[in-house]
Amino acid sequence: MTTNNQSQPTIALPAMYDSLQSSKNAANFVPLTPISFLSRTADVYPEITSLIYEEQQYTWRETQQRCQQMAHALQGLGTKAHDTVSILAFNTPEIFEAHFFVPLAGCVINTINTRLDPATITYILDFAETKVLIVDRQLLPQATDAIETQIAKGNNIHVVVIDDPHATEKPDIAANLPSTLAWHEYNQLLNAQEITTADYLPYQIADELQPLAINFTSGTSGLPKGVVYHHRGSYLMTMGTIAGWPVPKHPVYMYTVPLFHCNGWGHAWTMTAMAATIVCVRAIIPEKIFTLMQQHKVSHFGGAPIVLNMLANSPECPERVREDATVYCMTAGAPPPASVLAKMEGMGFDIMHVYGLTESYGHILQGTPQQEWSEFDIDTLAEYKSRQGVRFPMTDAVAVIDPETEQPVAHDGETIGEIAIRSNTMMSGYLKDQQATTEAFEGGWFRSGDLAVIHPDGYVQVKDRAKDIIISGGENISSVEIENALYKHAAVGEAAVVAMKDEKWGETPCAFVELKPNAEVSESELIEHCLTYLARFKKPSKVIFGPLPKTATGKIQKYELRNRLKD
Amino acid sequence: MTTNNQSQPTIALPAMYDSLQSSKNAANFVPLTPISFLSRTADVYPEITSLIYEEQQYTWRETQQRCQQMAHALQGLGTKAHDTVSILAFNTPEIFEAHFFVPLAGCVINTINTRLDPATITYILDFAETKVLIVDRQLLPQATDAIETQIAKGNNIHVVVIDDPHATEKPDIAANLPSTLAWHEYNQLLNAQEITTADYLPYQIADELQPLAINFTSGTSGLPKGVVYHHRGSYLMTMGTIAGWPVPKHPVYMYTVPLFHCNGWGHAWTMTAMAATIVCVRAIIPEKIFTLMQQHKVSHFGGAPIVLNMLANSPECPERVREDATVYCMTAGAPPPASVLAKMEGMGFDIMHVYGLTESYGHILQGTPQQEWSEFDIDTLAEYKSRQGVRFPMTDAVAVIDPETEQPVAHDGETIGEIAIRSNTMMSGYLKDQQATTEAFEGGWFRSGDLAVIHPDGYVQVKDRAKDIIISGGENISSVEIENALYKHAAVGEAAVVAMKDEKWGETPCAFVELKPNAEVSESELIEHCLTYLARFKKPSKVIFGPLPKTATGKIQKYELRNRLKD
Repeated sequence: MTTNNQSQPTIALPAMYDSLQSSKNAANFVPLTPISFLSRTADVYPEITSLIYEEQQYTWRETQQRCQQMAHALQGLGTKAHDTVSILAFNTPEIFEAHFFVPLAGCVINTINTRLDPATITYILDFAETKVLIVDRQLLPQATDAIETQIAKGNNIHVVVIDDPHATEKPDIAANLPSTLAWHEYNQLLNAQEITTADYLPYQIADELQPLAINFTSGTSGLPKGVVYHHRGSYLMTMGTIAGWPVPKHPVYMYTVPLFHCNGWGHAWTMTAMAATIVCVRAIIPEKIFTLMQQHKVSHFGGAPIVLNMLANSPECPERVREDATVYCMTAGAPPPASVLAKMEGMGFDIMHVYGLTESYGHILQGTPQQEWSEFDIDTLAEYKSRQGVRFPMTDAVAVIDPETEQPVAHDGETIGEIAIRSNTMMSGYLKDQQATTEAFEGGWFRSGDLAVIHPDGYVQVKDRAKDIIISGGENISSVEIENALYKHAAVGEAAVVAMKDEKWGETPCAFVELKPNAEVSESELIEHCLTYLARFKKPSKVIFGPLPKTATGKIQKYELRNRLKD
Repeated sequence: MTTNNQSQPTIALPAMYDSLQSSKNAANFVPLTPISFLSRTADVYPEITSLIYEEQQYTWRETQQRCQQMAHALQGLGTKAHDTVSILAFNTPEIFEAHFFVPLAGCVINTINTRLDPATITYILDFAETKVLIVDRQLLPQATDAIETQIAKGNNIHVVVIDDPHATEKPDIAANLPSTLAWHEYNQLLNAQEITTADYLPYQIADELQPLAINFTSGTSGLPKGVVYHHRGSYLMTMGTIAGWPVPKHPVYMYTVPLFHCNGWGHAWTMTAMAATIVCVRAIIPEKIFTLMQQHKVSHFGGAPIVLNMLANSPECPERVREDATVYCMTAGAPPPASVLAKMEGMGFDIMHVYGLTESYGHILQGTPQQEWSEFDIDTLAEYKSRQGVRFPMTDAVAVIDPETEQPVAHDGETIGEIAIRSNTMMSGYLKDQQATTEAFEGGWFRSGDLAVIHPDGYVQVKDRAKDIIISGGENISSVEIENALYKHAAVGEAAVVAMKDEKWGETPCAFVELKPNAEVSESELIEHCLTYLARFKKPSKVIFGPLPKTATGKIQKYELRNRLKD
């Protein structure tokens, strides 16, 4: 394919503009790419610390040099333009660097979820036509099948191993690789590239719509789909996040969001643009995170609600996370429960809830606080902050539309519609899946599948996944609404509600609940508790206690819960 | 012409991307335009104060409504897509609003310098093929000839008069307009538009490269040239300024930069994106500016060096401009003298020197401070802050190149080269001047005509305009360097140095100096003073005292000084 198969509309301008024949030339048109930010930051702030990981520490000058060396190394391995380079790694400096050196070498980065099983990794590596795999030594056993499959198919795959001294497990490298494969150790490969600044590869790209990254969605069912990002989208994601969060100059950013989630929410590029210092963490250990936050004066981080839960519930959590400064946190996924929010804000965190999808490069809605919110009590604040919010500056339109008529629903906080998106931060499409790509964009909107309301103040609140709605006696019941009620009980650790067949009502809500350690509550007590917050027809008719099944990315697998009800 | 006559390079991608046939569609590709920020800010922060001017005050909801009303009004006057709407006005709310309603109506905004003479205004209005002129009542006498010329040519021009109660002069409107012309008063026209949000015009445009603005350059000689900006460039200017300055959420911005200078340095769009409160000022009166800064808690403003001079030298200047906050100032043009900088920083201003041209949408280089500068004494800081600096995040490349070889000069702070620019914030070209447009972009760079050095830390320092260099005895002498030395004398108010014919040396520097009020110094004292800072061959051989001739925008007219030497 070619990327400009649908060119911009050719619009006719008045004759007075005829002199601008060369309206697009090398001096006034530069294809947008987020890797350009590394060039600028290394030029402008060369001595600012770029990355900190355990005893490792780099400046932006060094990070640029390392990325240039690795880009040369990739080309030395024989990669060609638009080849896929996959990476299976924890949040160590190498995966951060890959977000620059892979596109610098002209290739496309495919980050792989570290929690995936060998069969899925085999599928992804094959589907993405991976030419080079960069893999953390500890994760090598999960990738062995994938590598062997490529070798067996006669594909000449290259393997680069990150041998992190801080890995908790260090499986034998040779034993986990086919004996015929010549593998490379990351730093040895990097150090073997003897280049000077004169050898630096340009940060320019040919076309801003060319692919930059492939991110496989970890859907709750079915085979993962390869979502394709382009350079323009990630550039605008960077700029819009800076303006929207907002991000100041020289933040200290702790990278707790896995870089395999929408390229770490694009923050690798965003933080580079603002000449941040990035603190890498290989694993989420609350005590260590608090120590690092104080030691390095962390100002920003992102995390799934589970990370906030871990921090808020940690016995090691300090009275104040930092003596005299706020730590800004972006969180996405389920809304943070009021208790967690209260605890975190009390410690000195400022939490902003955002919403997005893999398809939208990550966050497109933000629960940006209004000035008057500062006067709210903590429960009201939690309620407001739990909403997914309003569009980011780079998002053109987010509408909540009636799935049938495609008309926007009323801003009444009650009428449920589907979230539909138009944005430059929207995927090019699904890799090798033309049907799904075409369907996704039908009607000129990307339909998210998420059901939501819009409040009178314009803030969107997600009520449910389209398929997670429970229809009971003709009434639509939001499973999220019931879950929120359950979370308000002190004993509830995690909760998920799905539809259960019912002869009388068609469906009724069934709650699956995992209690906090040492907590106790009975089924009838919990149902009674829900009635404080819910209309009677919405109360769960059954509560099943026990651990909840989750996807590799920590999402509760509702389809698995539904299966249990079928048994 | 059509805007995509030079389409993006059609690059070939691997077959695995064949499924992305619809890689550009309504849901994932939105032409970039800065007017989109008004839509978002009015949606997200409707009750935040948008504009303050004297007793007038609006919210972002109201500003959006007013802009939509005026866009309807323009269309009601019969404007068609890409028609030129010119505006000759002071920095009152109307010219701010025009930066949104003109493009909302599909038209192109042409701001005109209020200091221009009637003949030049006549030339501009005719050359830009103005269909609607919006003019401040006080400036009407300057526009009368221009309007009459259009009528005489049979052009159906519409005139909208801003009747500001705070105008210092209120010439009779009818007496200054052709009797056959039906003119409109701005607010009456606006209020006559009865529209609801359902009538709002879309913020979408057809093509991001379509013209948004025409800015006539006030060169120091010759006829003004019409520099054409497009929507994409101004969008990226907005985003890059937010990231580069940087601009926080809800700044309070005082609009002292005339909106006819590169669209007020693009700040109308930038401040809208960050949901600022904008304080308009019709005239620069130091006492009033200080009062307004304290009253409205101004956090940001921009100003030419002359404005900083006026503030620093004002007898009314307070000890601290704001009790407990810094006021950030962007300045462009001549570097602020150390004494002015010291005075301003002492009052609580944080000044950043930037560099740009009308052709580059304004600022592309910024003297962004490094962390270690906070330890500098005021003289060293002034020296560092007087440099034009490093590129903004949206600027692809700024090189200082040898004019002959086009190779970058050494980063030694000594080798002089010409500033060359590549940026998405670079004009489409000069209106109706294909030759000048072609020449401007020859070699794939925009050549600025400014001579500069690059210091070892990468900061660019402008030494001279190419034609302002003095060649004496075979040595190149920078007139700016001599001017800087002159400015270090306490008695010097303003100074300009040009080449003077000399039988022995070919040329020697001649200084024109305007002293501060009541200051005294002799020619020989000043020359002696220069020797403290300059090599002997650089000292001015003559000093002429008296007022300096200036362009309408306050630039010293060196060609006029050269003419004086010819007489």
